[in-house]
Amino acid sequence: MLGRLYENQECSAARALELVGERWSLLILRDAMFRNYTRFLQFQKSLGIAPNILAKRLEDFVAAGLMEHRQPGISGGQADYLLTQKGLELKAVIMTLTAWGDKWVRPGPIVFRNGADDQPIELQLRLADGNTPVDVADVVARRR
Amino acid sequence: MLGRLYENQECSAARALELVGERWSLLILRDAMFRNYTRFLQFQKSLGIAPNILAKRLEDFVAAGLMEHRQPGISGGQADYLLTQKGLELKAVIMTLTAWGDKWVRPGPIVFRNGADDQPIELQLRLADGNTPVDVADVVARRR
Repeated sequence: MLGRLYENQECSAARALELVGERWSLLILRDAMFRNYTRFLQFQKSLGIAPNILAKRLEDFVAAGLMEHRQPGISGGQADYLLTQKGLELKAVIMTLTAWGDKWVRPGPIVFRNGADDQPIELQLRLADGNTPVDVADVVARRR
Repeated sequence: MLGRLYENQECSAARALELVGERWSLLILRDAMFRNYTRFLQFQKSLGIAPNILAKRLEDFVAAGLMEHRQPGISGGQADYLLTQKGLELKAVIMTLTAWGDKWVRPGPIVFRNGADDQPIELQLRLADGNTPVDVADVVARRR
């Protein structure tokens, strides 16, 4: 988490980076989203991240509403960290990062599929009111 | 830039984060993409970033092929930092971060439009071979 460093940056991308701009955050979320990891030790083993840093990230995710912390039941066991809808919807960010890395760095080992029928999925840039594809070079930002 | 910290992370999202995972990187790229900034002082003024950090980021972007460094001509003036196609295509990452921040943090001041006709633009999740929309909850990751 970056705290209030972007306070003078009013745009939503900056606000989103406040929550997930830290170096490990998106990789922890990736493992939660796409590997269904929920346990501290799963994240730690996957990422090789220092326990104190991982603990802080998970705690920050809970505070930011990206995850829920489910305490272990009376039968014992570890606490779970479960993505909320808010956290889950960061999938699109992971997907665009992955698509870019596949194209411009090198093809990675992962493809995204529709869970129900295993068909390939894409994030497509289109006019909002129709099906017309838009080239990334043509996208401009305007004041709302 | 994060250097080789993610070496054991083979996925493309991790590779992309190696290049743009640092806290300021995506905001510098945002200003280059959507405000058409090319000058050192433009970025510095916009972000309030320390000059030595900004200089390092721009240098790293050039080294990573995200920007080209155009030297000033014999008439003088400042050097320009121009996005390459590789850098430009990170627009989709900024757009998904912005859409998420608009929805889950608060609506920001920016909307994305098609430059030619000013129509609203969206990144839509669809089956790759057709027009069927896909819900983000249904997306799974598979080994290629």
